[in-house]
Amino acid sequence: MEEKILEEQIYELIEKRQFSKLRSLLEDMNAADIAELFEEVSDKDVTVIFRILPKELAAEVFVEMDSDRQQLLIEAFSDKELREVMDELFMDDTVDIIDEMPATVAKRILKQTDAATRKMINQLLAYPDDSAGSIMTTEYIDLKKDMTVEDAFDRIRKIGTDSEQIYTCYVTDRSRHLLGIVSVKDLLLNSKDCVLKEIMDDNIIFANTLDDKEDVAGMFEKYDILALPVVDKENRLVGIVTVDDAIDVMQEEASEDIEKMAAILPSEKTYLKTGVFETFKARIPWLLFLMISATFTGAIISSFEDKLTKYAALIAFIPMLMGTGGNSGSQSSVTVIRALSLGDIEFKDIWRVIWKELRVSLVCGVILGVVNFIKLYLVDYLLLHSFDSAVVVAEMLTVCLTLVFVVIVAKLVGSILPILAKKIGFDPAVMASPLVTTILDAVSLIIYFGIAAQILGF
Amino acid sequence: MEEKILEEQIYELIEKRQFSKLRSLLEDMNAADIAELFEEVSDKDVTVIFRILPKELAAEVFVEMDSDRQQLLIEAFSDKELREVMDELFMDDTVDIIDEMPATVAKRILKQTDAATRKMINQLLAYPDDSAGSIMTTEYIDLKKDMTVEDAFDRIRKIGTDSEQIYTCYVTDRSRHLLGIVSVKDLLLNSKDCVLKEIMDDNIIFANTLDDKEDVAGMFEKYDILALPVVDKENRLVGIVTVDDAIDVMQEEASEDIEKMAAILPSEKTYLKTGVFETFKARIPWLLFLMISATFTGAIISSFEDKLTKYAALIAFIPMLMGTGGNSGSQSSVTVIRALSLGDIEFKDIWRVIWKELRVSLVCGVILGVVNFIKLYLVDYLLLHSFDSAVVVAEMLTVCLTLVFVVIVAKLVGSILPILAKKIGFDPAVMASPLVTTILDAVSLIIYFGIAAQILGF
Repeated sequence: MEEKILEEQIYELIEKRQFSKLRSLLEDMNAADIAELFEEVSDKDVTVIFRILPKELAAEVFVEMDSDRQQLLIEAFSDKELREVMDELFMDDTVDIIDEMPATVAKRILKQTDAATRKMINQLLAYPDDSAGSIMTTEYIDLKKDMTVEDAFDRIRKIGTDSEQIYTCYVTDRSRHLLGIVSVKDLLLNSKDCVLKEIMDDNIIFANTLDDKEDVAGMFEKYDILALPVVDKENRLVGIVTVDDAIDVMQEEASEDIEKMAAILPSEKTYLKTGVFETFKARIPWLLFLMISATFTGAIISSFEDKLTKYAALIAFIPMLMGTGGNSGSQSSVTVIRALSLGDIEFKDIWRVIWKELRVSLVCGVILGVVNFIKLYLVDYLLLHSFDSAVVVAEMLTVCLTLVFVVIVAKLVGSILPILAKKIGFDPAVMASPLVTTILDAVSLIIYFGIAAQILGF
Repeated sequence: MEEKILEEQIYELIEKRQFSKLRSLLEDMNAADIAELFEEVSDKDVTVIFRILPKELAAEVFVEMDSDRQQLLIEAFSDKELREVMDELFMDDTVDIIDEMPATVAKRILKQTDAATRKMINQLLAYPDDSAGSIMTTEYIDLKKDMTVEDAFDRIRKIGTDSEQIYTCYVTDRSRHLLGIVSVKDLLLNSKDCVLKEIMDDNIIFANTLDDKEDVAGMFEKYDILALPVVDKENRLVGIVTVDDAIDVMQEEASEDIEKMAAILPSEKTYLKTGVFETFKARIPWLLFLMISATFTGAIISSFEDKLTKYAALIAFIPMLMGTGGNSGSQSSVTVIRALSLGDIEFKDIWRVIWKELRVSLVCGVILGVVNFIKLYLVDYLLLHSFDSAVVVAEMLTVCLTLVFVVIVAKLVGSILPILAKKIGFDPAVMASPLVTTILDAVSLIIYFGIAAQILGF
C-alpha cells in the first residue's frame, strides 16, 4: 500500500518537474526498485531523471535496466557522462552491457575506457556465452600467503571499494596460481599477527573458465558458497563468480528448461519485453515440426480406415489413449530431465531408472485399465450406449489392454530418451513433452491397432 | 578423473577398516562431498565412519545427508553423541531435521537441548511450511546504534562463531526493532571510532515471518543480497534468511512448477530416493482425472460417428489438430506461468497478454494453416491418395481453417487461464499443459466439426 503511494508521488513529481524533491525521494530507494519504476516512465523523462541521481546510485540503476533503455541512455550521454557511469560499474556488468549493444554503441563505450580495461573487456567478451568465464568478474581481493591478518585487512581497505565481493579473499603466488582461500570471517576470528598461510583453507573449490555456467551455479547450491574462483588453463586465477550471478544463471536455466519442455525456443528476455515477432519465431519451429510429424499418426489411422469404419466405437477412444500415453510419458520425461539438470541422476543410473519406471508404470497402467473398464461399462455402455453390443466386451478389453501397454511403453520411453540424449551430447530438455508425445502418439496407435487385430481379428 | 580415484581409495579404506588413514583423507574434504560419498556406503559402515570425523565436520556432513540416513544415525547415537552433533548445528538446520523425523526421534532430540533452545525450536516449528519463518535462522549479529566500529568488531568476534552469516549485521533498539543494517564491508571501510548510527543503512529490505518463502527468495534475486532480516507482527527482528536457503527455495519452487506442469503432484525428495509407491501416488491422480475427462472428447467424436464414417479422411487429422492445439496452448500457458512466478507479469497485465497472444496466435495459425494446406496437397493428396477426391478441396479447407482457429483459441485459453487461476487464489502451475490440453482437446473437436458442418454440410 505504502509502496503504491510512493510510486504515485514520484510519478506526480516527474510530471510537475519538481526535480529536487524527486532526487531526495529517489536517493533513499533501492536501485532495483528505481529501475522498476522507470519502466513506466517515458524514454524522454528517463534521460532527464537519470541525470539527477547521485553518481553511484545512477550506475546501480543503470545496471538493473533492460538493454533497450541502456542503449537509449548511452546514446543520450555525453562522452564524459558515459565515462562516469562506466567507471562506477563492475567489470562483469560492463561486459554484459557491451555484449547486448549494437556494434557502434559498443565501440563508443570501449573508446571511453583505458587500454588496460579495454583489453580485459575484450578478453572477457571472448568467452563462450554459456561458460564460467562469461559470468565472472575480475575484481576480487587477492592476498599473499606471508601477509598477516592485519596486512590482509589493510589490503581489503585499499582495494575493497572496487571489489564486487570482499568476504572471500584469494591467496595467490607470484604467477597468480591459487594457493588458498581466506574468508573475512577467518580474518576476524584470528589475531592480527596471524600469518595467512596458517589460517587459509587450501582445499579449494574452483571452476575453469570454460566450465558450463550451469555446473558452476550448481556448485553454489551444493557447497553453500558466496563466491567461486575461476582459473584458466594454466591454473592461474583470472576471476570470480559471485552468488548473485549464480542465482541469475539458476533462474535462467530453469526458465530455459521449462520453455524447452513446452516446445519453445528459449529466450533471454522477459515475457512482456519480447516482441510479437520474436515470440512467434520462438514458437513456430516446433509447432511446424510437430504438425508435420503428426503425418505419421494420420497415416497409421488412414491405413486402418476400413477397419475403423467397421468398429466405429473404437475411433472415439483414440484421443483418450493418445492423451494418457502422452501424459504418462511426459510425467516420466520431465521428472528425469529435472533430476538430470539438478545432478540427482547420471547415465550410470539408467538401469535403476528403468527398473523404477517399469514398476511405477505397471501399477499405474493396471489401475488405469481397471478404472477405465468400470467407467466404460457404467458410462459408455449402460449410459451412453456407444458400443456395438455384439462385440462390446471385446472392444472394451481392447481399449483397456491398450491402456496398460501404452502407459508402460510411455513411461519407459519418456524416462530413457532424456538420459540417452544427454549421453550423446544433446539437450535432454528438448526430449521432453512434445517430442516424446509425438513419438508416443504413433506408438500408442500401433499398440491399439495391434491389440485390436488380436482380439477383434482386424 | 582425480575425484574417481579418491572415491575408490576411500571405499577401499572403508573395506579394509583403515580408519586413521580414512580420517586424514576425509578431514580435507568438503562436507557436501563426504555426504555424497556416504550415499554409496552401507548403513552399518556409515554409523562407524561418521564417528571418526572431527566434531565440526561431522555436524556439517550430518546436515547434508538425507533424512533417512539422519534418522539412522540419531538412532545409533548415545545421548552424549546426539548432544554433541546438535550443539554444532545452526538453528534452522536443527529445526529442519526435527521437522523430518518421526515423533519419537524428534522428542529424543528435543530432550538433549536446554529449555531456551527448546522453546525457540518449538516456535520455529510452528511457522507454516511455506513461510519465511520456516526457513529463517535465529543466529545473527545484532548491534546497537551507539556502538563504534571497534565495538561492532568486538561483538562480531564474540558471537561470530555461532552465527550462520556475519557479513550483514543488524542494528536494533532495546525492544528488538530493526533500525538499520551495517555490512562488514561498511565496518572495514570506515574508521574505528565511527558510530554505527552514522554509517548504518536505514533503508531496510525485510520480510515478515508469514510472507511466502517464494517471494522471499525472489527478493534475493532482485536485490542481490546475502541475507534478509525477518520481523514479526510487532516489527521485532526475529531471524534472518541466508542466501543459501533462498537458493534452495528457488530450486525447489522451479522443480515444483515443472512437476505441476507435467501433471505430477510435487514431492520434496530427489528422484532416486522417492519410492515406487510414492512416485505412483504422485502420478496417478492426474492420470486418472485426465483419462476420465477424455470422456468428453470421446462423446463428441461418438456423436459425429455417422458423419465421420462418411468423410472418413477427416478421422486421420484428429490427432494432428488436437496435438497442435495442445502444443500451442501449452506454449502460452507455460510461458505465462513462468512469468507469473518470476513476477514479470501481474493480473493488471492481462490485456497486454491477451493482445500479444492474439497477434502471435494469428501469425502462427495462418502460417501453420498455409503450410498444412501445401503438405496436404503434396503428401496426402498426390502421394498418399488419402482424400476422397470428390470433396478433396473442401476437406482440405476444413482441416486448415480448423488449424487457424484452434491455434488462436489455444493460445488465448492457455495464457488467460493461469492468470485467472492466480487471481482467484489457485496455483497457476496446475493450470498448465495437462488441464489446458484436456480443455483444448474438446474445444478443438468442436471447432473441427463445426467448420466441417459449414463447409461439408455435416
